[in-house]
Amino acid sequence: MILKIAILGYGVVGSGVAEVLKINAEQITKKTGKKIEVKHILDLRDFPSDPYESLMTKDFGVIENDPEVGIVVEAIGGETIAYDYAKRAIMSGKSVCTPNKALIAKHGAELFALAKEKGVNLLFEASVGGGIPLIRPYIDAVLTDQVQVVAGILNGTSNYILTQMSENGASYAAALKDAQSLGYAEQDPTADVGSYDACRKLCILLSLALDKQVNYENVRTEGIENISTEDFAFGKALGFTLKQIVSGKICENGVEALAAPFFVPLTHPLASVNDVYNAAWLTGKTTGNVMFYGSGAGKLPTASAVVSNIIDAANATSYIPHAWTTQEANILPPDKYVTKKLIRVICKNPTAIKNAITLAEYPNQAAWLTPPESEEQTIKSLEEIKKMAGVERVLRVFE
Amino acid sequence: MILKIAILGYGVVGSGVAEVLKINAEQITKKTGKKIEVKHILDLRDFPSDPYESLMTKDFGVIENDPEVGIVVEAIGGETIAYDYAKRAIMSGKSVCTPNKALIAKHGAELFALAKEKGVNLLFEASVGGGIPLIRPYIDAVLTDQVQVVAGILNGTSNYILTQMSENGASYAAALKDAQSLGYAEQDPTADVGSYDACRKLCILLSLALDKQVNYENVRTEGIENISTEDFAFGKALGFTLKQIVSGKICENGVEALAAPFFVPLTHPLASVNDVYNAAWLTGKTTGNVMFYGSGAGKLPTASAVVSNIIDAANATSYIPHAWTTQEANILPPDKYVTKKLIRVICKNPTAIKNAITLAEYPNQAAWLTPPESEEQTIKSLEEIKKMAGVERVLRVFE
Repeated sequence: MILKIAILGYGVVGSGVAEVLKINAEQITKKTGKKIEVKHILDLRDFPSDPYESLMTKDFGVIENDPEVGIVVEAIGGETIAYDYAKRAIMSGKSVCTPNKALIAKHGAELFALAKEKGVNLLFEASVGGGIPLIRPYIDAVLTDQVQVVAGILNGTSNYILTQMSENGASYAAALKDAQSLGYAEQDPTADVGSYDACRKLCILLSLALDKQVNYENVRTEGIENISTEDFAFGKALGFTLKQIVSGKICENGVEALAAPFFVPLTHPLASVNDVYNAAWLTGKTTGNVMFYGSGAGKLPTASAVVSNIIDAANATSYIPHAWTTQEANILPPDKYVTKKLIRVICKNPTAIKNAITLAEYPNQAAWLTPPESEEQTIKSLEEIKKMAGVERVLRVFE
Repeated sequence: MILKIAILGYGVVGSGVAEVLKINAEQITKKTGKKIEVKHILDLRDFPSDPYESLMTKDFGVIENDPEVGIVVEAIGGETIAYDYAKRAIMSGKSVCTPNKALIAKHGAELFALAKEKGVNLLFEASVGGGIPLIRPYIDAVLTDQVQVVAGILNGTSNYILTQMSENGASYAAALKDAQSLGYAEQDPTADVGSYDACRKLCILLSLALDKQVNYENVRTEGIENISTEDFAFGKALGFTLKQIVSGKICENGVEALAAPFFVPLTHPLASVNDVYNAAWLTGKTTGNVMFYGSGAGKLPTASAVVSNIIDAANATSYIPHAWTTQEANILPPDKYVTKKLIRVICKNPTAIKNAITLAEYPNQAAWLTPPESEEQTIKSLEEIKKMAGVERVLRVFE
């Protein structure tokens, strides 16, 4: 059986999908009995001498109106043209596979409803965790079990920068420059280092657990731009490394959610997720702790996840039920997030602060751990401290 | 919609399934629209005053002949009665969900063929990795991508023992006794510490990747019984910890497979899998490295995975295609397995051995790493060494 698809956007992921389909063609046909054929590729640019040049089109109408095309890969990115084309593809009875986290985080619920109406599927395996097989087992897990915590390291750029700082003692500026020179970070790295990208991924995972819309505007993001070598030094002395973490705790009265730098105990599996790797962490009431680890980005891993969706869409005989609705989830205000914190202060006599640790290389600093507490409680407890020391940093601990 | 099931065997997992169905009942109904009801529980023992006492039966015929029961959970274990009942359940048109690795490793291919014939499903999520959502995403992954390596830490008992030895400097005997007192190890721990249990799990993963039968008799198993504190000390000096690893490398001319103790670099994500936790490691040609981590055993995690299968079986409208056949895979002889090794020798003048490391606390020992080589090559390269030193240990390195 030959299955014809179209690819929208011939950038890194779009061209990767064509490449993975070629590399694994024999495997896919052997295992599924299906031959997947790229019929159209939409891009505004020209690709002279590209092996797929003859498939190129600049007109979405060609794809929209081609009844032979059953599956459309949306790899344009963003929320504008991608949204328009994804919607039109679904309206014309085609399943859509996309790695586009912005599209799913913002318009997921609406597009799922439309897909249901049209009896097709909207699949988004690569939107969170890139090449990690995550979304499907996660959807299965939340069917069976009550999720208590969903968290993870979901931005490879930030993780690369923090790994360089931790392992090689690099400054933030030097590590960012290194990441940019390797193509891991963009010239404007805000979306990655500011935790905005990871936050959207957390919102997708939370929406899937809650079956409600989690808007990223309601989740506080804090970036890693101000993390210093001192933070790593004091963390290490207490058995921690530092990671950009997203964390959602599903509580009785609402969801505590944050995307921010956190200390992670060196013995925690998330502490060994280094370089551009990603991992999602899940605590289910009966399943316990689960971690999914793998390549969070990269051309072929991400494209492999999209191809896995193409096969899912090809195998599905009807709409795969999805309970994610437009009803808004109750995200608690960020100052309700309860966690241990590491407080670091600058003062004249650090050893006078009880239970604090001091490091010889930073003679005017002291640091200590708080019990699990909310931001409100921390602010209150720091009132006394501020009379004798300058609070240099308050960083959360993920446990 | 009410869905009636039967549970065979009311031990740890069987009773766990009933418990998870109760704990997560509301969640399951909310998410799937189905109410799952336990109608019969088969066990030879009596359970007076158990809340499910009224459902107990000692006669499999009651279940086999009850047309209301669509799904049977096989939680008896072993390969004899479990095989007979699983087969009869499938023959009578019921889907079977089982955590029984021995049953699947030995009779999987035959039972899948039978399930196909009868249009029902045989699902086995908990058979490898206990509560880790592993089998389903793994089956998806091997549809899309070419698996190059499948490996992991798949026995919680051994992992607990080795973690105790590594972290607390315990001897093997003391750590085993500790594991037995906690109920993690059986009085006869051979199946776990001898790597037999983990080997069967590797065979299931390899069979799923290859679509062929991998017989565990063809995979060499080596136990952890002789691992000593010296092994950990020399490993640590070279940046390794020691784990019971299963590893299958799918090569052009066949499969290199082993279940044995391996050194793992401390920077490798598998090194942070401690205590009774398990993890499966996968390297796909285009997906890259993936790790699935979670509770490898335990009543509720394992039962959660079985319940996830019950929901899969309930949602499936027909036989989920499966390509695992009875055709035998080509497992290469164990001496073809290529890997780096750590050689440790006992000799009078350890520092005379070039490139070897020595440790002050073991004055008559030296250790070094070989390049990646087969067992044949290692044996040959040790001929010269044996003239000047006694070879105390040859341990493989997983990288």
